Amino acid sequence: MTPKANYHMLKPLIERQLSAQTDLQRTAIIDVGSNSFRLVVMTYLRGYHFQLTDEVRESVRLVQGLGATGKLSREAMAHAVEVMRLYAAFCRACGIDDIAAVATSAVREAANRTEFLSRVQRETGISVRLLSGEEEAYYGYLAAVNSTTLRDGFVVDLGGGSLEITRVQDRLPRESVSLTLGAVRTTEDWLPSIPPTKEQVARLRKHIREQLAPLTWFKLKGSEQLVGQGGSLRNLARIAQKQGNYPLDELHGYELAANDVRKIAKQLEGMSLAERLRVNGMKPDRADIALAAAIVIEECLRHAEAETLLVCSQGLREGVFYERFFNGNADPSAPPMFKNVREASVINVAHLYHFQERHARHVAHLSLSMFDQLAALEGDSERFSAAERELLWAACLLHDIGMNIDYNDHHRHSYYLILNSGLPGFTHRELALIALAAKYHRKGTPSTAPISAVLQAGDEARLLRMTALLRLAEQLDRSRDGAVSDVRLEPHEDGYLLTPISDQDISVAVWSAQLHTDIFRSAFGKPLAITYNV
Amino acid sequence: MTPKANYHMLKPLIERQLSAQTDLQRTAIIDVGSNSFRLVVMTYLRGYHFQLTDEVRESVRLVQGLGATGKLSREAMAHAVEVMRLYAAFCRACGIDDIAAVATSAVREAANRTEFLSRVQRETGISVRLLSGEEEAYYGYLAAVNSTTLRDGFVVDLGGGSLEITRVQDRLPRESVSLTLGAVRTTEDWLPSIPPTKEQVARLRKHIREQLAPLTWFKLKGSEQLVGQGGSLRNLARIAQKQGNYPLDELHGYELAANDVRKIAKQLEGMSLAERLRVNGMKPDRADIALAAAIVIEECLRHAEAETLLVCSQGLREGVFYERFFNGNADPSAPPMFKNVREASVINVAHLYHFQERHARHVAHLSLSMFDQLAALEGDSERFSAAERELLWAACLLHDIGMNIDYNDHHRHSYYLILNSGLPGFTHRELALIALAAKYHRKGTPSTAPISAVLQAGDEARLLRMTALLRLAEQLDRSRDGAVSDVRLEPHEDGYLLTPISDQDISVAVWSAQLHTDIFRSAFGKPLAITYNV
Repeated sequence: MTPKANYHMLKPLIERQLSAQTDLQRTAIIDVGSNSFRLVVMTYLRGYHFQLTDEVRESVRLVQGLGATGKLSREAMAHAVEVMRLYAAFCRACGIDDIAAVATSAVREAANRTEFLSRVQRETGISVRLLSGEEEAYYGYLAAVNSTTLRDGFVVDLGGGSLEITRVQDRLPRESVSLTLGAVRTTEDWLPSIPPTKEQVARLRKHIREQLAPLTWFKLKGSEQLVGQGGSLRNLARIAQKQGNYPLDELHGYELAANDVRKIAKQLEGMSLAERLRVNGMKPDRADIALAAAIVIEECLRHAEAETLLVCSQGLREGVFYERFFNGNADPSAPPMFKNVREASVINVAHLYHFQERHARHVAHLSLSMFDQLAALEGDSERFSAAERELLWAACLLHDIGMNIDYNDHHRHSYYLILNSGLPGFTHRELALIALAAKYHRKGTPSTAPISAVLQAGDEARLLRMTALLRLAEQLDRSRDGAVSDVRLEPHEDGYLLTPISDQDISVAVWSAQLHTDIFRSAFGKPLAITYNV
Repeated sequence: MTPKANYHMLKPLIERQLSAQTDLQRTAIIDVGSNSFRLVVMTYLRGYHFQLTDEVRESVRLVQGLGATGKLSREAMAHAVEVMRLYAAFCRACGIDDIAAVATSAVREAANRTEFLSRVQRETGISVRLLSGEEEAYYGYLAAVNSTTLRDGFVVDLGGGSLEITRVQDRLPRESVSLTLGAVRTTEDWLPSIPPTKEQVARLRKHIREQLAPLTWFKLKGSEQLVGQGGSLRNLARIAQKQGNYPLDELHGYELAANDVRKIAKQLEGMSLAERLRVNGMKPDRADIALAAAIVIEECLRHAEAETLLVCSQGLREGVFYERFFNGNADPSAPPMFKNVREASVINVAHLYHFQERHARHVAHLSLSMFDQLAALEGDSERFSAAERELLWAACLLHDIGMNIDYNDHHRHSYYLILNSGLPGFTHRELALIALAAKYHRKGTPSTAPISAVLQAGDEARLLRMTALLRLAEQLDRSRDGAVSDVRLEPHEDGYLLTPISDQDISVAVWSAQLHTDIFRSAFGKPLAITYNV
């Protein structure tokens, strides 16, 4: 067997090898939340790559009644202990020893928190770490900064019990606050009836504004971003997507408009519970708290003077995970974060689908070589921007991952996998361009339908340019042996002349590439000739 | 540590593992066809599982001019030798040593075949095996019998040069014939202009009928099936699918109606080449031969008195492959075929996506146990048919394959993978039911949109029953440890009582299953209670 074997065929072998690896770890993270409990299993090679491999969720409503009595109710506590007992049994059955359980607002606020935590410890064997408001905010921040390109701005994490707001500067947390404005908490305290009265809604808004008023630092400036987290926010974003017939089935990276939040809050205000349940996109077990959640988010956006909020579907759980994931870094003083989220995302996804690394990187090398030479020859900084170059790089690295599904139609499978991977750190528009370029890397005239709604003016032409260079590079490495080490591009008559550089027999490459010069002409408006001097 | 650094640490381990694996084989199969040449690479564990891992195609039209001169033209031969030289370079570059090249009708008919074959051997090093008409028919038959449930009936393989018809009885080939009625050959000989005159079409039909007339054995009887193969047939089927807005993107297993063939032949007859190229689904390099192909297929169906033809997208290449794949079987006298195509398909697909075999088989065991007990208790042989039982088994084995893509939404990924796998041997209706049951194995109310067009009356209810049993079994093995060894089902009040059998702590299983008793009630019209006696 040669090392050139197709990697996707070898997945079982690789996996067997991986599971023999002592570095492969599994951690169960248990989020003892105020609205729901969730257990997620992350499987990972520390600092290398990770994947969510199991998930169990139970709606517990631990915070129920807390506002009135200051204590966790007997019923809520019994339910909570029962669920934790089941989670412990689940971990035992799955052979998971490493368990990180954290409790947040509801437990933090409860007068009987010590009794609860020791009862869980005694009856289930799970030791739950109680997070302070600052710690809760920190883990949300950690998830945001590892899954978005947030550099300066804010992270808003709306839970069942509390709302955390963190100011981020140069990717580091600067200040944070934890307010008891969680979706369940505000529903119980301020909107006890469905639909609520106008006065109840007005009083809730007044309360939120009073809480936010002291936060003079919570104002969006210039290019700062507002990133939002939490299940109630995801629910809201899903509703907005459904109402706008959004073409992608992906929440992470979605730009939720302040206008849409206002509109949905207005709609929900007049509805009965039954009517809320019929709202397209509504999660049934969040219907009762959806209005309060929408109002809290609306008021946050108003206070921060933000037009949109970037949805981050990672949060507390992932934050706790990232701390473990980066623990043991070569540089212990480095913050637990990826240096470049976009690059890490592409490489993580490429590895998850077992890309043929040498071929993918060689296609990127050839594509970018043509891109750079064209940029110099055409002298057009708009068409040859750094942003377009990065998208082309990502498309090259990921163009073949669909082979992990099947060779037949693997271009179409790559498109499906890229769109579904979400590629944290890229906008949905960028995600769509990368996926589309991969879809057309073998043949066909690039079409942006049915996801053109996320694209901008000029993206059709951009996609055509990306596809043309990716496709030519793919053909130049058609036999995946890297025989064409580079290419030279120079003016030739009314177009360009491409000369592959090699010291081997590259007839397959030249023959393959020559079949695809038409798309170059469509993309760049000039003919391309390919020479081959043996 | 960056992800990249770690991957490089892993690579030597992977490669060591690869070189230890001696069973994994790769074969390049080269089909020196009359209309096009194709090289496919199959990667496989002999007798175990296989996958197409690469493909190169070139339109060569070797048969061009053969009818007039009886010889391969100088141009066609030069083109052919050039392509073979490239294929040889491709195999060398990819490190593939095992090459099986076969030539068919065009070479067989040509007076200068010996010159051609020795020139290919001399200039490319590839030794091409020239197949007789019977051998060509045999390999088509072998592909059909290994990828469909054909037991009794006919295989019709339409190539560029010839048409092979094989009669199959009890899965064995009984008689076959090879006629020079290939799509390129009949176009050249009978329909030289586009559009043709009415007289030209009438003369072609007369010629085909004269050729078919002696084949008194080529008549479909009772439950016999007609299976069709070849690129021109796939082209025709794709056009029929597009015209009927067919919801699946899968050709293999498609039932092409004789009426649609007639309709398409009629449409094409009056069209210019430019008009043909605009027909939705038309392959550009088959547009010129599409009318002759449609007429040959139409006449075959008429002669055989068949209403439909089952499209088989495998053919000669796969037939040659299957012979290698089964070579070395324990029983050398056994024909090179799967004992049960449907079972082999499910298991092949399950392995390709690295299913968790223990869990999948245990879910099947628990589902079928409930199915069998319900069948006995309800005494309803229609709702509890062997066919439904087999679909349930397949859905159980494949329900989690989407995890190979991502844990998140893995039910949706399973649906995508199952639909795209095609599951040779199952009809599209069965394929859809299996995919849909997998899609709903975790949550949601099963809906057949947007592929309901391939389903029949009663399939909504059937899907609900399959989903209910799959989902309960999935929950009973929620922690994937097989702790619930079986279940007992008995009448209880106005419904049923389910008792999980185990000697372990099965609280997770019971708790999980109890959350999903509603769907049982919807599916079977009776409530389900679950007991748990520790």
